[in-house]
Amino acid sequence: MSKQLNHKILDCTIRDGGLVNNWDFSVKMVQDMYAGLSEAGVEYMEIGYKNSAKLLKGADAGPWRFLNEDFLKEVIQTKTETKLSALVDIGRVDENDILPREQSHLDMIRVATYIKDVDKAIELVNKFHSYGYETSINIMALSHVMENELTEAFEEIGKSPVDVVYVVDSYGSMDNGDIDYLVSKFQRLLPNKKLGVHMHNNMQLAFSNTLIGASKGVEYLDASVYGMGRAAGNCPTELLVSYLKNPRYEIRPVLDVIEKHLIPMREKVEWGYIIPYMIAGMLNEHPRAGMALRSSDDKDKFVEFYDKLTSPEAMPTNHHSD
Amino acid sequence: MSKQLNHKILDCTIRDGGLVNNWDFSVKMVQDMYAGLSEAGVEYMEIGYKNSAKLLKGADAGPWRFLNEDFLKEVIQTKTETKLSALVDIGRVDENDILPREQSHLDMIRVATYIKDVDKAIELVNKFHSYGYETSINIMALSHVMENELTEAFEEIGKSPVDVVYVVDSYGSMDNGDIDYLVSKFQRLLPNKKLGVHMHNNMQLAFSNTLIGASKGVEYLDASVYGMGRAAGNCPTELLVSYLKNPRYEIRPVLDVIEKHLIPMREKVEWGYIIPYMIAGMLNEHPRAGMALRSSDDKDKFVEFYDKLTSPEAMPTNHHSD
Repeated sequence: MSKQLNHKILDCTIRDGGLVNNWDFSVKMVQDMYAGLSEAGVEYMEIGYKNSAKLLKGADAGPWRFLNEDFLKEVIQTKTETKLSALVDIGRVDENDILPREQSHLDMIRVATYIKDVDKAIELVNKFHSYGYETSINIMALSHVMENELTEAFEEIGKSPVDVVYVVDSYGSMDNGDIDYLVSKFQRLLPNKKLGVHMHNNMQLAFSNTLIGASKGVEYLDASVYGMGRAAGNCPTELLVSYLKNPRYEIRPVLDVIEKHLIPMREKVEWGYIIPYMIAGMLNEHPRAGMALRSSDDKDKFVEFYDKLTSPEAMPTNHHSD
Repeated sequence: MSKQLNHKILDCTIRDGGLVNNWDFSVKMVQDMYAGLSEAGVEYMEIGYKNSAKLLKGADAGPWRFLNEDFLKEVIQTKTETKLSALVDIGRVDENDILPREQSHLDMIRVATYIKDVDKAIELVNKFHSYGYETSINIMALSHVMENELTEAFEEIGKSPVDVVYVVDSYGSMDNGDIDYLVSKFQRLLPNKKLGVHMHNNMQLAFSNTLIGASKGVEYLDASVYGMGRAAGNCPTELLVSYLKNPRYEIRPVLDVIEKHLIPMREKVEWGYIIPYMIAGMLNEHPRAGMALRSSDDKDKFVEFYDKLTSPEAMPTNHHSD
């Protein structure tokens, strides 16, 4: 790849990885992660969800699901050049929880949305932007969106103050050609926005797809250490840091985090290239059926699972956010 | 990818996977593999090495390392449309072991060679071709070959009767751009030969690189079930079978083989995306240092390993065949 220095890696291990272990990360691990990513030259660390415990079941989750500013300041006592971001979901964030940026440890708030809620996402972006945050809109499940809906949404997004718009391969179903097509489309229809990619690894294409995006000029590259993330996981941070031709990146501190934290974690919970997630990716479906299978006694009954998902009676999975 | 029907998948689980478990595959597993690949529409199964036990240490290896025709005919009693191939190494094959094709179960003999031995590879190809076999030359360690050497070798290969010439990413160090470049070069300099790709998965690019080759018209696509192969392993057969737009391919029988054989196997021996192999891939080195680490007590000491491989005193790994 030609030398480009404007890429930004956004590591979302704690946020997306939390979907695997119910955000059960120790303070020490999160501190080591921040120190390691900082030393590695990674530009952003997404340290959790800024959803509201009042609006969401699952209050037993770790603190990284419902980030609290006081807690955050205890954990990260000194900020480095690595910025902090948080993700919010439509309908799950209490706007009163959000401080103005100058009082917050967070630099960026990202809004995850399905296409039907883009108007609500823009409302949130307007507010967060007025508070001084960098913002992004991450349109999930793009592979299930019709072109006309997307074009309409882009008209509104283009007029909004959002900084970054993400191409999200929610189901890990996209290949090089799909990313090439979507990035070109986003670039054409959102000429005044920066773009990002967030890929999933169901078909072992997350890294490769991220590189396609990067080579086309996409600036924000989501990744997670050792690929930790729901189901098949994400583009591995260590691969990006090592591969991208930018002298600011160092792989060594990322290897240290993997050795100390991700290897022991992977022994307790699973993510990555696991056959039911591969099948879901190939079928362009949400991984939830695969996740249910993997937590059952039938976790390796791949043929039965495949038959169920491809039988004429199979219900299409619904697309509610989770 | 546009619909192309001339691809041939060559599954090398038993041959390349044998490098992981010392060819300790049960007859039942190999029979199930052949039945499964046949049902899946896979065109070739590489069932082992046709090296000579007399010429090679390691006589404790399973029978798939030193294929014997009588044994093979016991194992595979009825051949299907799926052809059988075997790999030979320069200096390790006894030509007297090779029967004429009409007396053999094998359809294709592939010759693995380093660039310096291409003349010897061509000698073997001449012989195997005269016996009636399909042949290939697999030039290993291409990422360590200088262009002028390659161009010279191509002159001889072009004049030989070999059917297929392989682009082999021995160290799993190549990206999309490298494959694109090499395939174009092979196509230009070997216009009368079919091409193949054999990729390794150190950087999670084996599948993606194989697709790049396929999209450029490469006909022979090496793969292995669940990616089983030395160190980081190979392009997974299940991904190719599922992804390629060809009605002859069925993923279901491959899933069955994974469920019955590869999952239990993976619990006993390891291959795949494992950090020391990723590091070796990034550094464009043979995985042998990583393999030594993984069989030591320090198997997860990634930082120490990285420091050792990147220290100014690090010896370059030698390139002897193994």
